[in-house]
Amino acid sequence: MTVQGPERTFMTDANQAPQDAHERTDNRPIVAKFGGSSVADAGQVRKIAAIVRANPARRYVVVSAPGKRSGSDKKITDLLYLCHSLGEQGLDASAPFAVIKDRYLGLAEELGVPGAWEWLRDIQQHIADGADKDWVASRGEYLSARIIAAYLDAEFVDAIEGISFGADGRLHGAETYTRMGSRLGAVPKDKVAVIPGFYGQDVKGRIRCFSRGGSDVTGAIVARAVHASVYENWTDVSGMLMADPRLVPNPKPIQEITYREQRELSYMGATVLHDEAVFPVREAGIPIHIKNTNQPEDDGTRIVTTRDSANTAIVGIAGRRGFTIILTEKAMMNQERGYGRKVLEILEANGISYEHSPTSIDTLSVIVTDEELNGKESEVVTEIRRIVQPDRIEVERDIAMLAIVGQGMVHRIGIAAKVFMALASAEVNIRLINQGSSELNIIIGVSDSDYERALRAIYDVFAEES
Amino acid sequence: MTVQGPERTFMTDANQAPQDAHERTDNRPIVAKFGGSSVADAGQVRKIAAIVRANPARRYVVVSAPGKRSGSDKKITDLLYLCHSLGEQGLDASAPFAVIKDRYLGLAEELGVPGAWEWLRDIQQHIADGADKDWVASRGEYLSARIIAAYLDAEFVDAIEGISFGADGRLHGAETYTRMGSRLGAVPKDKVAVIPGFYGQDVKGRIRCFSRGGSDVTGAIVARAVHASVYENWTDVSGMLMADPRLVPNPKPIQEITYREQRELSYMGATVLHDEAVFPVREAGIPIHIKNTNQPEDDGTRIVTTRDSANTAIVGIAGRRGFTIILTEKAMMNQERGYGRKVLEILEANGISYEHSPTSIDTLSVIVTDEELNGKESEVVTEIRRIVQPDRIEVERDIAMLAIVGQGMVHRIGIAAKVFMALASAEVNIRLINQGSSELNIIIGVSDSDYERALRAIYDVFAEES
Repeated sequence: MTVQGPERTFMTDANQAPQDAHERTDNRPIVAKFGGSSVADAGQVRKIAAIVRANPARRYVVVSAPGKRSGSDKKITDLLYLCHSLGEQGLDASAPFAVIKDRYLGLAEELGVPGAWEWLRDIQQHIADGADKDWVASRGEYLSARIIAAYLDAEFVDAIEGISFGADGRLHGAETYTRMGSRLGAVPKDKVAVIPGFYGQDVKGRIRCFSRGGSDVTGAIVARAVHASVYENWTDVSGMLMADPRLVPNPKPIQEITYREQRELSYMGATVLHDEAVFPVREAGIPIHIKNTNQPEDDGTRIVTTRDSANTAIVGIAGRRGFTIILTEKAMMNQERGYGRKVLEILEANGISYEHSPTSIDTLSVIVTDEELNGKESEVVTEIRRIVQPDRIEVERDIAMLAIVGQGMVHRIGIAAKVFMALASAEVNIRLINQGSSELNIIIGVSDSDYERALRAIYDVFAEES
Repeated sequence: MTVQGPERTFMTDANQAPQDAHERTDNRPIVAKFGGSSVADAGQVRKIAAIVRANPARRYVVVSAPGKRSGSDKKITDLLYLCHSLGEQGLDASAPFAVIKDRYLGLAEELGVPGAWEWLRDIQQHIADGADKDWVASRGEYLSARIIAAYLDAEFVDAIEGISFGADGRLHGAETYTRMGSRLGAVPKDKVAVIPGFYGQDVKGRIRCFSRGGSDVTGAIVARAVHASVYENWTDVSGMLMADPRLVPNPKPIQEITYREQRELSYMGATVLHDEAVFPVREAGIPIHIKNTNQPEDDGTRIVTTRDSANTAIVGIAGRRGFTIILTEKAMMNQERGYGRKVLEILEANGISYEHSPTSIDTLSVIVTDEELNGKESEVVTEIRRIVQPDRIEVERDIAMLAIVGQGMVHRIGIAAKVFMALASAEVNIRLINQGSSELNIIIGVSDSDYERALRAIYDVFAEES
C-alpha cells in the first residue's frame, strides 16, 4: 500500500514552519522512503534529490515504483502483472510493456540517466521467457531505484542482497536485518544507497513481494537494519490528521503520536502505514516521520515510542462502519460458568474474529465486523441457541464504531464527560461504550445513521483544545 | 434470607399517602407474605390481621418464623439448628428449646391461641428422637403459621401439601404449582389460608428447606400457584431506595421497577429479594409489591414486568467493591483468532467466573470478583502467560463497579453525558466503562477510593429528576 487514493484518509497537505535540523543530533543515519507520487516524474525525483542533499544523514533511500501522474495513467505494477499473465499464456506482452517502457525511458531521459534501455530490454526478455509473477511485479521498484540511484550518483543496492524470505513466503526478520545491515555497511560513507522497495528474495533465490504495505515495509526494514535515528516516510501529504477529512472539514494535523495511538487509529480506519510497515521500527524504538515531498518544510507527523501528553490528551478520532451486534440474554447467566467461552468458541469454529464482547448481569453480546460475519449469521445464531440456550438472542445490524484515541486518557478526569456531552448535544443515541481495556481509547458504538454526526461532534470538542 | 440486618440495604421506612385500593381490579387473589419482623410479637401479628382484613382479596398468607424483637433476641432458626445438633449427639436440648418454647407460648398466649403447648411438646419429642435437620429447622415457620392461622380464624395449610422437591433437593416447579394450586383451591372461598414459609417435602416424604430466600420463595410459589394478581412482600421497610442509604443520605424511594431492573440492582449489591424468590412470579408476570407492615399506607415498591419509563430513565444506582482487572496486551491480537476464548478458558479451568471482558485493539481484560479470584491469581497469570503469550499482563486490584440502572437508557440521549459530567465534577477517575450489552445499565469501574464519591455524584444528578 502506498499512501495514495482513498488510503490518504487522515493525512494533510498543508502545514507550517520549515525545519530540517532536529534529526542531526547524533551520528546515526536517516532512512528516507519515497512513495509512488514522489517518484512519479522527473520533477518529483529532483525534489527527492534536494531533500536527500539537504541532510547528509539521509544516507539510505528506499523508493516505490512511479505512481500515477494523473487519472489516465496506468499503475506500473498493474501493467507488470498484465505482462506476466500474457507471457505465461505464451501471448505477446509488448503492448502493455510499451507503456512501461515509455514511462521509464521518459523519466531516465529527462533526468539524463543512461542505461535504462538495456534494463528494460532484459526485463522484456525475461517476461517472454516466462519469469515468475513476483519477479515481474518487482521490476517497477527495481527500475525506479536504478534510475534514481544513477541520478543521485548513489550506489544501487538490490533488495535481494538483504531481504530474505523463507520458502513459505514469510520474512526472516533477524537474518534480513543482519544481511541488510552488513550489505549497507559496505557502502562508502560518502555515498548514498538507493534500495528498491516492495520485494526480497527467498531461500531458493526467487523474488518474493510483500503482500501489503509494500515499499513502506522495505523502508522500515532498512531503518531497523542500519539503526537509523528516524525512518522518514515521504509522501504527498503532510502527515496524519485528527479526523477523516471526508467527514470533518479541515481537520487539524497531528504533530506527534505514539506507535500505540497510531495503531489504534489505524485499526479503526485511519490508514497511514500498514501495521507490517510499523512493527520493524516500532520494535527497535525508531521513530517514523511522515513528511511531504512537495512541502518538505511542513512539520509532518512524528510517530514515536513515548510522548508528553500533558497538552494533548486526545490525538485523533477514527471510526468504521459495518459492525453487527449479536446480543444474548439468559436469566442467571452469571451462575453458568463457561457461557462466554462457549459463545466465543462458536464464533471461532465459524472462523469469525470478534471485536468486543460486552457483558451485563444477564446478557452477553459480541460485536463483529460484517466482513467476518458475512453469510454465517444464521448458522452462528442457530448454534448459539443450541449450545448456550439463551432466553433471547437479537441481531442488530448497521452499527458504526468510533474510537477516541489518546494516551493516558484513563488517567484524565473529564474526557468521558466531554465525549458524552458532545454526543448528547448532537442527539446521538449511544448503543455501546467500551472503555477500560486499553488506557488509550474510548470505543463507542452508534447507529450507522448517527455515525458522521457523532464523529464531527467529538472532533469539534477536542480540536478546540489541541 | 429475610429482609433484615445488613440486607436491609436500599429499603426505606418512610413514605407517603395511604392507599389500598388498586389491587382489587379483578377476582384474582392476593398473596401476602410477612417477614420475620412482621411476626416478631403479638403487636405485629395484630397488624397482619388488620392488613389481611383490609382487603378480602388477601386470601393467602405466607409467614416467616418470628424475627428478633431486639438485639438480645436469638434467631429462632439458629436455636432450632442448635437443638438438632444436641439431639443428634444424644445430648439434652431442653435449654435452647426452652427459649423457643417461651417465645411461641408467649405469642400464643397474648393472641389467645390455644394448642401451642401440644405442638411444642410434639416437636421437642421429635428432636429428642433424632429428627432430620431440615425438619427441625422448618418448625419455626410451622409454629408461626399455626398460631397466626388460629388467630386469624384461617385454615392452616402445611407447605408439604404443595411444595415438592426431588431427591436431589431441587424444587419440582410444575408439580409444586399444580399441587399447591389444587390444595389451596380446596380452601373455602370465605376462608383465609396461612402457609408456613421456608420449606416443602421431597419425593421420599422428608422435609426440605430452601437454601436461601426462605419464606420469600414460598410466597412466590404460592402466588404463582393461585394465579395471584400481586405478590405482596410485607417487611419492615417501605420498599427499595434509589441508592444505598449507608452511602447516600436519605435516598429517594423507588415506586416502580421492572423485574429486570431489580435483578440488575440486586446483582450489583442492592439486595431486596433473592433471585430465587423473584423468578416464580416473574415468569408468570405477577408483580411483587414490597410493603411495610408498620406503615401499610406507604406506597412501597412495585416490581413489575413493564413500566412506563418516560419520566424516570434511571431507577437506581448500585455498586460493589472488590473487583480485580487482569489486563493483557499483545500486538496484532486481532489477527489471532481464539485469543479471547483461550483466556476465558483458563479462567473457567480455574473455576473462576468473569464479570466483564472489555477489549481494545491490542488488549483484552477480564474483570473478576476477588472472591472468584481468591488465591488463584498467580496461577491464572502464569497460565495466561504460557498459553496466549501476551506482550504484557497487569493485575489491578481494588476496583469498585457501579451500575446505573434504568430501562430504555440506551434509547435516551444524554444519560451517559450526565453520568460522566457528574463523575468529572466529583474528580473521579474512570477506570472502565461497559455499556451496550444490556439496554438497562451503564457499568463503570473506578478505584475503590473513588467509589463512594462516584456513587453520590451520580445519585445527586438523577435524584433531582426522578
